[in-house]
Amino acid sequence: MSRLRTRLGNLGVSDRLGLRAPIFGFSHAVEVVAAITNAGGYGVYGATRRLPEEIEAELAWIRARVGDRPFGVDLVIPAKVPEKNDRAALEKEIPEPHRAFIEGIEAKYAVPKPSGPGMRTRFIRSEEIQDAQIAAVAASDVDLVALGIGCPPEVVATMKARGKTTVALVGQERHAAKALEAGVDLLVAQGYDAGGHTGVVGTFSLVPRIVDLAGDVPVLAAGGVSTGRHVAAALAMGAAGVWVGTAFLLTEENASHLTRGEVEALVRSQATDTVISRAESGKPFRQTRSAWSEEWAAPGAPQPLGHPLHDVLVGDILGAIEEHDVRPLAHSGAGQGIGWFDRMRPVADVMADLTAEAEAAIDRMSRAREEVPA
Amino acid sequence: MSRLRTRLGNLGVSDRLGLRAPIFGFSHAVEVVAAITNAGGYGVYGATRRLPEEIEAELAWIRARVGDRPFGVDLVIPAKVPEKNDRAALEKEIPEPHRAFIEGIEAKYAVPKPSGPGMRTRFIRSEEIQDAQIAAVAASDVDLVALGIGCPPEVVATMKARGKTTVALVGQERHAAKALEAGVDLLVAQGYDAGGHTGVVGTFSLVPRIVDLAGDVPVLAAGGVSTGRHVAAALAMGAAGVWVGTAFLLTEENASHLTRGEVEALVRSQATDTVISRAESGKPFRQTRSAWSEEWAAPGAPQPLGHPLHDVLVGDILGAIEEHDVRPLAHSGAGQGIGWFDRMRPVADVMADLTAEAEAAIDRMSRAREEVPA
Repeated sequence: MSRLRTRLGNLGVSDRLGLRAPIFGFSHAVEVVAAITNAGGYGVYGATRRLPEEIEAELAWIRARVGDRPFGVDLVIPAKVPEKNDRAALEKEIPEPHRAFIEGIEAKYAVPKPSGPGMRTRFIRSEEIQDAQIAAVAASDVDLVALGIGCPPEVVATMKARGKTTVALVGQERHAAKALEAGVDLLVAQGYDAGGHTGVVGTFSLVPRIVDLAGDVPVLAAGGVSTGRHVAAALAMGAAGVWVGTAFLLTEENASHLTRGEVEALVRSQATDTVISRAESGKPFRQTRSAWSEEWAAPGAPQPLGHPLHDVLVGDILGAIEEHDVRPLAHSGAGQGIGWFDRMRPVADVMADLTAEAEAAIDRMSRAREEVPA
Repeated sequence: MSRLRTRLGNLGVSDRLGLRAPIFGFSHAVEVVAAITNAGGYGVYGATRRLPEEIEAELAWIRARVGDRPFGVDLVIPAKVPEKNDRAALEKEIPEPHRAFIEGIEAKYAVPKPSGPGMRTRFIRSEEIQDAQIAAVAASDVDLVALGIGCPPEVVATMKARGKTTVALVGQERHAAKALEAGVDLLVAQGYDAGGHTGVVGTFSLVPRIVDLAGDVPVLAAGGVSTGRHVAAALAMGAAGVWVGTAFLLTEENASHLTRGEVEALVRSQATDTVISRAESGKPFRQTRSAWSEEWAAPGAPQPLGHPLHDVLVGDILGAIEEHDVRPLAHSGAGQGIGWFDRMRPVADVMADLTAEAEAAIDRMSRAREEVPA
C-alpha cells in the first residue's frame, strides 16, 4: 500500500489519524461525511444551517460510524448578523420591489406554497444561534472545526482549548492574514472555481500565494479539485492537501439529499453551466445555471439584498423550489469541476480514484525530470 | 544540467529545438520574445496590432537575435470582421450616448488630444488586413504560429504546409474541439486567471479537461503561471508545458514599452486589483483596475459595443491615455499572477526562477510518495 505523505504530518494528521491521502471532503450529508472518513479521507460536515441540538445529534451519528477516525464540522460565522432570531423584524426591512419580484417568479413558474420555511428560513442566522452552535460543537468530540466565512479569534481559541484542529477557509490574502492572526492550525485556500460561496481569485492563482503567506501553517487547496491530477497539482503548488466538495455531490450516500431536478442539473452541467450569483444568500455563490439565477441576472431585476436579509427574502421560495422540485428553477450549488461527474457512485470509489490518480500523476512527473549533458 | 522533459518531445520541440524547459512566453515586445528564446524558452510575439510590413520586419529582427533557436508569432483572427479597413463607415454605427460617454471621460480626467490614432485605431481589424498579416507570417521563417482568438482551418493548413507548428488558445471545451478539428499541433488551455482576453473557466478547472479532450495533441497551461510551482502543477495536471504572459511584463526588456503609470499599476497590483472588463476591446479583457474600468462599470455607463466597433470608439482615447500617461486612467492588461511581480528584472532571471523552482517542486513531490506497509 502506498500513501501520500505531506506536511500534514506536522499536524500529526496523516500519521496519527491514519489518512491514506490528504483529502478533506465537505458535505451537508452526514452519510457522505462518514463515508469519506471511512475511506481514509477527512470528512467535514457542513452544519451551519442546523440547530444546535441537531448538530449535537448529527456529530454523534457520524462518530458512531467512524469510530476513532477523524472528522470535522464546518460553521459559517459572518461578522454582522442580528442579535436575535427575529424574522418578523427583518421582514419589515425588505423593500417592496424585492417582494414583488419574488411574487412575480412564484407566479411565472407556478411555484406551489412550501409546507414550511426553507433551509434558509427555518432559522435566521443570529448571534444567539451562532453562539449555541459554537457551544454544541465545542462540547462534542469532533476532531476539527472549519470556519467557512469569518474567523473570530475567540472561537478559534475555544476550539483549540478543547483539543480540536481549527481551520479557516479563505479566498484572498487579507482573509488569510486575519485567520493566521486568529491562530488557526490549517488554512483552506478556496478559489473562484469552487462551488457555493466563493471569491474572485482563481484556485490556480490563489493557492501558492496563500502557501507563502501561511509559513509553517499547512494549506489545503480548494475550488475545482476533481481528479487525482488536481491533487498532485495542489501538492506541486505547495499545498499540504486538498478540500473537495463538488466531487461528493453525485454520490450514492448523498442521493437522498437531492431532488430529481438537482441530480439532473448536476449530471448535465459543465464548468460553463455554473454561475456565480448573489441570488442564493446575498453573498457570491456558485451554482448550476437555472431560471433562478437567470431571473436575477435579467435587466430590471433588483440587486440582491445583504446577508442575512436576503435569506429572509428567498428562504421560503428556495424551500418550495426544492420541496416541489420546480423546473426550470431547480438548481444546486456546484463548482467548475462538475463536468467531471455525471453519474452516482459510492463515496469510496470517488476517494479511490482521487488517490490512485494522484499517485500516478506524481510518478509521471518524476519521470519528466531527467539529467542531460550540459 | 537538468531539463524538464515532457510530451513536447513528441513534437520534437524540446529535443530538436533545445528547449531547457517547456515554457512559452508571450509578449508584445520583440526584445522580450528574443530574450525568452535565448534563455531556453519559446518566445511568442503578439503581432495582431501590427501591419503586415511591420510583422515582416519584426520577425526578421527577432530571427537575427535568436539564430536557429525557435520562436513564434501570435495573431488574433475573429470570425466576424469588416471586409475592408474602413474606419469612416464604422464611425457612423457608433451610438450617440457612447460618444457622449467617451467625451465625458475626456473632460473629467482632462485627457489631452493624442498625436495620432491609438494602437486599436491605427488600423481597424478587417479581412483585408488579416489576410495580409497571415501572408506575411506564412512567408516568414517563424517556427510557430499561435491563434489567440479564432482558428480558421485554412490558416492552420497554410501554416502547416510551410512547416510551422500551429497552436490555438482556447478557454472552453467547445473552442478546443473546433481547434482540434482544424488540425492544430498544440493547444493552449487559457483560464479565467489570465491577463488580456480571457474566459470564465478557472485555469485549475480548465487545463485537465482540455488535456483529456486533446488526446495525443499536447496542451500548454495558461492563466496565472507565475512561479515554478505553477509549472510543476501544470505538468501534474497533464499539460506538456506552460504559456506565460504576465511574468514578462515587468522585465528590463519590456521597459521601453511601458509608461510610468503602467509600471506603477503593475508593481502595486495584487490578483484582486485586476478586473475583467469589456471596456478595452468589446471582448472580456483582464486588466489592472483603474478609473477606466471603474467608469465603464459605474451605474448608467453604456454597455461596451461589439468587436471591432468598440475599438473604433475607444482606440483614440486609449492611445491618448498611454501617450500622455493620464492618471488615474492608466492601466495595463495583467493576469491574476501579477501579485508575484513587483520590480523590473531581466527576462533571463524570470526564466531561471521558473525553471529552477519547477524542478525543485517536482523533486519535493517525488519525496511525498512513500511506500508504507499495508
